[in-house]
Amino acid sequence: MMGTTGRLLGLGVGPGDPELITLKTLRHLRAAPVVAYFAGPGRKGHALSTIESHLDASQQLLRLEYPLTTEAVSGPRSYDDIMVDFYDAAASRVAEHLATGHDVAVICEGDPMLYGSYMYLHDRLAARYPGEVVPGVCAMLAGAAMLGRPLVYRDQSLSVVAGTLPAPELAARLESAEAAVIMKLGRNLGKVRDVLLQLRRADQALYIEQATLPGQRMMPLMDVDPSSAPYFSMVLVPGRRWLT
Amino acid sequence: MMGTTGRLLGLGVGPGDPELITLKTLRHLRAAPVVAYFAGPGRKGHALSTIESHLDASQQLLRLEYPLTTEAVSGPRSYDDIMVDFYDAAASRVAEHLATGHDVAVICEGDPMLYGSYMYLHDRLAARYPGEVVPGVCAMLAGAAMLGRPLVYRDQSLSVVAGTLPAPELAARLESAEAAVIMKLGRNLGKVRDVLLQLRRADQALYIEQATLPGQRMMPLMDVDPSSAPYFSMVLVPGRRWLT
Repeated sequence: MMGTTGRLLGLGVGPGDPELITLKTLRHLRAAPVVAYFAGPGRKGHALSTIESHLDASQQLLRLEYPLTTEAVSGPRSYDDIMVDFYDAAASRVAEHLATGHDVAVICEGDPMLYGSYMYLHDRLAARYPGEVVPGVCAMLAGAAMLGRPLVYRDQSLSVVAGTLPAPELAARLESAEAAVIMKLGRNLGKVRDVLLQLRRADQALYIEQATLPGQRMMPLMDVDPSSAPYFSMVLVPGRRWLT
Repeated sequence: MMGTTGRLLGLGVGPGDPELITLKTLRHLRAAPVVAYFAGPGRKGHALSTIESHLDASQQLLRLEYPLTTEAVSGPRSYDDIMVDFYDAAASRVAEHLATGHDVAVICEGDPMLYGSYMYLHDRLAARYPGEVVPGVCAMLAGAAMLGRPLVYRDQSLSVVAGTLPAPELAARLESAEAAVIMKLGRNLGKVRDVLLQLRRADQALYIEQATLPGQRMMPLMDVDPSSAPYFSMVLVPGRRWLT
């Protein structure tokens, strides 16, 4: 139909195991003429790796390459300024396809609405174009499943925090939480461990990296080399067992 | 092979839309000789409704019916005591099948490790029987997707809390959270609204019930009749937008 715009589809592809995508994401993915994905410079992109076996040659790939690999920038422009420009430009590229009537499936590691780059496209485009967001299995629940440890019982609260926070803030947020997940570890792993030690929660904390992927590793937090952790890693502090 | 026990499979089936199950859950579900599910007295069970179209007549259904519909019990025994007995008995019934070499797929609304009844079987059986937990799409991320609202940006923290908590504790937990999800509303909805009003966060709060199901309803929290909410409902307080 002339004049009809395409749909913006934010598709969660899950934590990494290609079998952990939903039937709905698979249906939208196979039908999309354009598949957009984020990737770091020189990287393939985790979301693309997860779903590429489901694509065929007729589908156009739209690569959205991050301008930076770290938040530590030198030069006159701030990290935020650089990223605003990047997401503005990425949204424009996606919008070009939408304007010509093509659906664009933006694939997202984990879930689209939880710490994902898709959110920055959504905030720029969802009010202007029709679309749909398909939730996905998020990394923290994949971690709990792989560790075989229930995360939150009954009326317990769960705190999801970024390891990039300063130690005092991390401690304040973790102190009151009956269960916790700490994302974005990287070079913050030692700090996270020290905070949990100080709170006397380190013994219950579990570490997992590359959950559901072939390179998956998991162990008690206290057994981990604290110097660094890869991007795809997290610490889980499960809630206290109930009814056993 | 004689002497081989069956596997305990904890399968997340997602928030309700049958299309939001993963390929992995579907594969395990179709192959399982026994499918166990929890349900309230006189109810069909939400997890069963979600996946029953994928079952065939050769599969045995194992119904695990809750002894209570509310935590307010009268009589000499406490809620906890009654539930411990219930989960002990449920685990024994599942174990009978495992002992005869049959895999048992325990289907779980949302994700198995997040507030789910499966956890009580897992805690009783996972150390004794081989098995696997397959994560699922949890209700809160389905809610964010349906509302079309990104939940957590960048280094923001997310607090997941139960609406059953006393108002002062609810306030303390929500006050420090940049983003929040409040589950288990029911008759607690008015209290939750009052706490968010007091914290000046009520205007940003969104309400959704039966996310991804045909009966889905969603609106700003301040537009909801505060007298009650169904079990399958939640309040989301999205984090502040970043980079826009």
